[in-house]
Amino acid sequence: MTFVFGMDGGASKSVSIVADTKGNVLSRVESGPSNYHNIGKEKAKEAIEHAVQRAIEASRTKIAEFEVACLGLAGMDSQTSYNVLYGIISDIKVFRKVMLLNDAEIGLGGATGCRHGIVVNAGTGAVAFGMNQRGEKGRSGGWGYLIGDEGSAYDVSRRALMAAAKAHDGRGEPTLLLPMIMEALSLGQFEQIIELLYHKEMSPEALASLAPVVFEAAQKRDKVSQEILECAGEELGLVAIAVARALGMESEECEVAPIGGMFRPHTLLYKSFARVLRKHAPDCRLIKPIFEPAVGAVLLALKEAGVEFTDLLMERIGQSLKGRVTTCGLKNGSIPCNSIL
Amino acid sequence: MTFVFGMDGGASKSVSIVADTKGNVLSRVESGPSNYHNIGKEKAKEAIEHAVQRAIEASRTKIAEFEVACLGLAGMDSQTSYNVLYGIISDIKVFRKVMLLNDAEIGLGGATGCRHGIVVNAGTGAVAFGMNQRGEKGRSGGWGYLIGDEGSAYDVSRRALMAAAKAHDGRGEPTLLLPMIMEALSLGQFEQIIELLYHKEMSPEALASLAPVVFEAAQKRDKVSQEILECAGEELGLVAIAVARALGMESEECEVAPIGGMFRPHTLLYKSFARVLRKHAPDCRLIKPIFEPAVGAVLLALKEAGVEFTDLLMERIGQSLKGRVTTCGLKNGSIPCNSIL
Repeated sequence: MTFVFGMDGGASKSVSIVADTKGNVLSRVESGPSNYHNIGKEKAKEAIEHAVQRAIEASRTKIAEFEVACLGLAGMDSQTSYNVLYGIISDIKVFRKVMLLNDAEIGLGGATGCRHGIVVNAGTGAVAFGMNQRGEKGRSGGWGYLIGDEGSAYDVSRRALMAAAKAHDGRGEPTLLLPMIMEALSLGQFEQIIELLYHKEMSPEALASLAPVVFEAAQKRDKVSQEILECAGEELGLVAIAVARALGMESEECEVAPIGGMFRPHTLLYKSFARVLRKHAPDCRLIKPIFEPAVGAVLLALKEAGVEFTDLLMERIGQSLKGRVTTCGLKNGSIPCNSIL
Repeated sequence: MTFVFGMDGGASKSVSIVADTKGNVLSRVESGPSNYHNIGKEKAKEAIEHAVQRAIEASRTKIAEFEVACLGLAGMDSQTSYNVLYGIISDIKVFRKVMLLNDAEIGLGGATGCRHGIVVNAGTGAVAFGMNQRGEKGRSGGWGYLIGDEGSAYDVSRRALMAAAKAHDGRGEPTLLLPMIMEALSLGQFEQIIELLYHKEMSPEALASLAPVVFEAAQKRDKVSQEILECAGEELGLVAIAVARALGMESEECEVAPIGGMFRPHTLLYKSFARVLRKHAPDCRLIKPIFEPAVGAVLLALKEAGVEFTDLLMERIGQSLKGRVTTCGLKNGSIPCNSIL
């Protein structure tokens, strides 16, 4: 029997899956972050090796080698990062063949079951990735928290802090964000935010964790928060549309899968995201992802191993995953983007 | 003879001045940065001690003690930072009495010759500080590069990088900023910006040094750059207005001094800044600063030492500074803010 390994290596956690080439998922384990941009090369290597070992152990199978390993890693965004990560991975001897992809690409693989379409991933960061019927690929966004990731949890949190600072100064409108952020961060005075941000060096992930406060304030009809979320939704719509245009998909029936923690249903963010799609790509359909990104990595590894994609194979993957995955639905419910508005 | 010491401790350099209580400036030296937020406590202490020593040497005077030392330090923005900096300064034994102020406050002292008014300082960061006729003080902005400093060189540079990334993705309008930034940073491909920003850890100061590129692109009629500068000017207008409102100065004749590298005359930034002032505080007048901030520190130290502010004193300071200061005019040319438009 031959095996494949799929991994979704993120900034806050990693998910690893071992499957055989018949589509039986043998294990799924979660482990620590593996984004080398944040934790460095050495720790990233350790994190990946640790994840592989745990996934093999959990599979209760004697695996000496994986036919194909597909790793979708956050931070795989340039030739330089590819070279760095390839150096890390080539030291791991259990992989016969390695595919190193950006995490957005495995996101698309999982969301659509390896079909063409566009995935928009909005978590701590934000990026869109697409593939058209001709197999051409494109991406947009994902330039990181300093100069991009518009619409991400980091971006929304940062805008919320700016709005709170402006309200504090009397420069901006009063907003619930000021007291709510102070409470969330246990600040007696808002000025203490400076100590927290610049001295205690709050990580981008820690800062991004303020996003739920913005959703909560918006629900309480805070106008400033509502505007931040609407703006974030528009930005996420724009990253999707940029990919659709680059791949000639904006005027065809195209599936768009929003994934990541920022796409909570029924929020202003979700609605303004859908509004931008409807305006610029009216024939696209918003889909609920079939599988989580780590399964996308497994599917891409199976494809690379020459395994034929039959209904039976997909069903077997879905069945053997049951009870292991909680984040995604297993049914592909496709809806036109304007039905949300 | 008794002496005072004034210092403008910034993020990129520091300026120290020694004067006697008759208003004779005995020395003016420039030295390295002293913002403890950036370089740490130990180095900040060393930097201040070094500056004091050099200023004494350059004065060619035997000075065992300063009657008053007034230090205006970037990063003096909360009780915590006051306590940290007070700990540093109290170890320096040549100061009989120490005044520790935010650098914006000495900026106002220098710009107006210790009179009431508002100073807006837009360099790497951006902050406004004001004092009304009743001696009440207020500030706005200056929350640092992560959540504030709107209108600063950092903010403008960051927006330029975001616009370049959007143009690269096809999300945003084409802009000259993309090729011009690539040239300024010697990037063969724009994707290399990720390596530069996140791995080589470009400092906020280094990132802020892209601001001149934006001014240049705007002069070449690049629409995206023009919008960034107009928006920056508006933000700087808002920090000034917030201070004016807080101090009840928006409906009285009030002098506003724009200082720092972002206020180049005849630019869109300057014009949109003046436009906001005219709209919200029509009786304010834009002034050219009389003295640089380090002289403001000296003036505040002299005031604290009980020295009377006569025309003779001010003239003596101006005369004895000649040839030492190049950054500011010595004449106070006041103009109504709407004459700029």
